[in-house]
Amino acid sequence: MFAPEHIIDRNNVYIMGSGNKVIMMAHGFGCNQTMWRFLIPELPDDYKLVLFDYVGSGAASMAEYSTSKYSSLEGYAQDIVDICKVLDLQNVSFIGHSVSGTIGLLAARAVPDRINALIMICPSPCFLNIDQGYQGGFEKHDLSELIELMDKNYIGWAEYLAPLVTGITERHPVTNELTESFCTTNPISAKNFAKATFFSDHRTILPENTHPVLLLQSDNDALASLSVGQYMEKNTPNSELQVIKGKGHCLHMTHPQDVALHIKRFLEVKCAGE
Amino acid sequence: MFAPEHIIDRNNVYIMGSGNKVIMMAHGFGCNQTMWRFLIPELPDDYKLVLFDYVGSGAASMAEYSTSKYSSLEGYAQDIVDICKVLDLQNVSFIGHSVSGTIGLLAARAVPDRINALIMICPSPCFLNIDQGYQGGFEKHDLSELIELMDKNYIGWAEYLAPLVTGITERHPVTNELTESFCTTNPISAKNFAKATFFSDHRTILPENTHPVLLLQSDNDALASLSVGQYMEKNTPNSELQVIKGKGHCLHMTHPQDVALHIKRFLEVKCAGE
Repeated sequence: MFAPEHIIDRNNVYIMGSGNKVIMMAHGFGCNQTMWRFLIPELPDDYKLVLFDYVGSGAASMAEYSTSKYSSLEGYAQDIVDICKVLDLQNVSFIGHSVSGTIGLLAARAVPDRINALIMICPSPCFLNIDQGYQGGFEKHDLSELIELMDKNYIGWAEYLAPLVTGITERHPVTNELTESFCTTNPISAKNFAKATFFSDHRTILPENTHPVLLLQSDNDALASLSVGQYMEKNTPNSELQVIKGKGHCLHMTHPQDVALHIKRFLEVKCAGE
Repeated sequence: MFAPEHIIDRNNVYIMGSGNKVIMMAHGFGCNQTMWRFLIPELPDDYKLVLFDYVGSGAASMAEYSTSKYSSLEGYAQDIVDICKVLDLQNVSFIGHSVSGTIGLLAARAVPDRINALIMICPSPCFLNIDQGYQGGFEKHDLSELIELMDKNYIGWAEYLAPLVTGITERHPVTNELTESFCTTNPISAKNFAKATFFSDHRTILPENTHPVLLLQSDNDALASLSVGQYMEKNTPNSELQVIKGKGHCLHMTHPQDVALHIKRFLEVKCAGE
């Protein structure tokens, strides 16, 4: 068991507010905890917010980076589990962006009594096109080429991917910020996280879910389509899908008020009486 | 005259809210606009917030970086002037952290009719020890060594400077974030900004000030001491000094509520009736 201060330091954990109820927020690939700043002012006041960066991302420590551990999403889920344990968090409402929806599901399986609800913003359990029944949106060779580009031209890769993610092709602060965040993430950890995110298939864990799940999907997202959200709702017990009219894969940055409206309603209903 | 979208893009300008009144927020050396996120939720709701990154910092464009222009604080002030002009900002309450207090004064001289009040968080008009009458806190050779360290060991430099700035020597999210921000700023623009910040002496412009000025100083700041704040109050017409009990040079990140209380009171008094 790690000492609490070790994990707090390792994952650059930042706690805001002092409510009895807890919201934990997990960023996506190539991102960091600062990107929650647009959503945070819209969230209810009576929650304590627990923010963090995955090892290898943001301002978390690279000293403990392990290529093998962080080559699968289970490694990232372990970061969440560690934080929940050392802070002894209970009744956590977990908000995960993109791949952190899946990572949250993995963490909730590991510590089911600590997490009581999962909110997923633009999630996808698998970004690959598998068969007629599941089209994650990407062919494996296309994603392989994208990841190879990280070696050849790291800046070019970031400048290609960021507008695809935000859905904003002209220069815009959110696209600029994502480009900058991609560029300034350690290339080794970024590539490893990219592979874990884009080449994995976690559809099989959806039916095992036992927590209330809110799926917030964009109606126009190049990375996680509406059909992916519909697949998740169909295959995840206790889930509801809400579709937000808005382009892009970063609704928490581009449409924070719309996202917050759904989150507040969901928390009021699902977490009432705690 | 530049096209508006050019400046918006160049300085990664981000506008929040839609109030009639304007607060413009200018980050300090080695920082970027995301560091205002702790203060923003505490500010009054009826203001439009204008955030930006200086060219060479944060997610602003490096394409237009000019070593000569940005070797003096006047170059940074021109970024502010450009943004005020292209957005046609009026009645701007300007908030500047650290060196951006001085940069704000320079901008207010250039466009006095657009700026109506200046709020300076941990400002210093000169970081150098000049004589018995003015002790900025640092000997020139010490600062020269610190800036030379940027060439020799950029990571080591960031890890040395960040805890000095935040006043938090143990690992802490704010110190981690500052270290990361220093490390990920382009070394060329960072070194140039450091020289412009730490080797300049702008004390002579203080008496020329014509705007209401709020000086918020920490009572324990390794970079801008209380005596620097007292010097500024004495030599700046129309200024008031408020001392915040709190360690470090980043009060907007570590003590946002205390900072906001003073700002709100100041704005209510100074900007009433607009």
